[in-house]
Amino acid sequence: MSKASPSLQQISHNQITTENWSLKEAIEGCARADIQWIAPWRHKVHELGLKESKRMIRDAGLQVSSLCRGGMFPASTTAKRQENLDDNKLAVEEAAELGADVLVLVCGAAPDKDIDTSRKWVEEGIEKLAPFAASHGVKLGIEPLHPMYAADRSVIVTLNQANTIAEKFSPDQVGVIVDVFHVWWDPHLYQEIERAAGNILGFHVSDWIVPVPDLFKGRGMMGDGVIEIRRIRQAVEKAGYHGPIEVEIINQSIWDQPGDDVLATIKDRFLKHV
Amino acid sequence: MSKASPSLQQISHNQITTENWSLKEAIEGCARADIQWIAPWRHKVHELGLKESKRMIRDAGLQVSSLCRGGMFPASTTAKRQENLDDNKLAVEEAAELGADVLVLVCGAAPDKDIDTSRKWVEEGIEKLAPFAASHGVKLGIEPLHPMYAADRSVIVTLNQANTIAEKFSPDQVGVIVDVFHVWWDPHLYQEIERAAGNILGFHVSDWIVPVPDLFKGRGMMGDGVIEIRRIRQAVEKAGYHGPIEVEIINQSIWDQPGDDVLATIKDRFLKHV
Repeated sequence: MSKASPSLQQISHNQITTENWSLKEAIEGCARADIQWIAPWRHKVHELGLKESKRMIRDAGLQVSSLCRGGMFPASTTAKRQENLDDNKLAVEEAAELGADVLVLVCGAAPDKDIDTSRKWVEEGIEKLAPFAASHGVKLGIEPLHPMYAADRSVIVTLNQANTIAEKFSPDQVGVIVDVFHVWWDPHLYQEIERAAGNILGFHVSDWIVPVPDLFKGRGMMGDGVIEIRRIRQAVEKAGYHGPIEVEIINQSIWDQPGDDVLATIKDRFLKHV
Repeated sequence: MSKASPSLQQISHNQITTENWSLKEAIEGCARADIQWIAPWRHKVHELGLKESKRMIRDAGLQVSSLCRGGMFPASTTAKRQENLDDNKLAVEEAAELGADVLVLVCGAAPDKDIDTSRKWVEEGIEKLAPFAASHGVKLGIEPLHPMYAADRSVIVTLNQANTIAEKFSPDQVGVIVDVFHVWWDPHLYQEIERAAGNILGFHVSDWIVPVPDLFKGRGMMGDGVIEIRRIRQAVEKAGYHGPIEVEIINQSIWDQPGDDVLATIKDRFLKHV
């Protein structure tokens, strides 16, 4: 049986939700808000420095739910695909250093007319990266993105696709990430969540607001939109996932609010809607 | 074997592509451009008047590929759903009067948190409308819309869903519309087109441009984006569809161009990219 509300201790602050904060500010904000998990983004880690990021996160008593992000495998030349793979290896090393169990994969897209080939490049990239990641104790979390990003961010657009790839690997090496914003529309959502049992490496929440203000920066605060977040959370729990729940909201008007206010709202909405 | 290019005689001008034109202007524009099919929108027909629309279309020697649009079945009250059904019956009568074989269904969505129920309301609406449409000699074309419209325009977002509904009816009554903009991202696209053989009532083209300028008015001219339009057209032909091909482009910068220029570009791009 799922609890009516998840525990506040499950909240993980995906730092893009407070995009105007540096990683240092996000860590301090989480400490003030008594949030126990954080999901840093690589460019913010690079700004602060990897060692210093690790030290600050540890000193604040935070755990890292995932590192955002690896992926972006497709490219039209072999050389560029190798470059992408090399960068993914760096991301794995950073995830390991930060104590993140999971590197989130936004799989990428090549904006040309051959989506099948891009999909093959994604599979090839994951195949090449998985043993390296495993040797560093880092799992790869394939995050299907909303189909509106199929041309420029991810040709992996359904949980069905992500499951099919993940099933080729040991659950200790490759799994899937369920982000409600990306998958809520899918007529096969609940059967694919059930299929993912044992393979779910992360659960992300936000909301789909109407009208969507922007293709990229259009996500809403939980409760402001149409997604059945609680139902999806309960399905994910039934499939065996009981880990941290990342709040990942990409929205200019939320970015423009003071970070402390945003974290307070998140805690309130988390109890009511997640 | 599919021809390399379709015939220019297959072009149907979906009039939203020249949104600034009245129906009268669109009819005259098609005549000047030697375009033989048109797909009028209901609000434009109402502006001109149904009888006058019919007369002008006939006098210009045009055929009507479809009427846009019926659908919008879901609503939170029984009374409002009945109202929606009544409006759909009017749409069927208008389609019959205009000599349109097909009424395109944009199935609708109720912007609340229960997408399953909205999907049931869509099925109920189609079940109720289909016999009425059949008695008027009008087929219902279920058009799956891109998942980014699942909250406000259509809870039918995949060809898989549309096929599953259409298969409950005689192909003479209910079928599917394949619009490349809405379905190009789908990993199961080609198998669902094959499954739709004999049930395809329309084929619509435009393109997915990168970046998408706007969630609604973001479609591109064929050839300006990433969609494998020709491959999809050939699959649709292989599945038995050889009828008119509607060019339906919703894009402010194209609307801002002179309509005659837009039709000239369409003919050029149709031969090169469709």
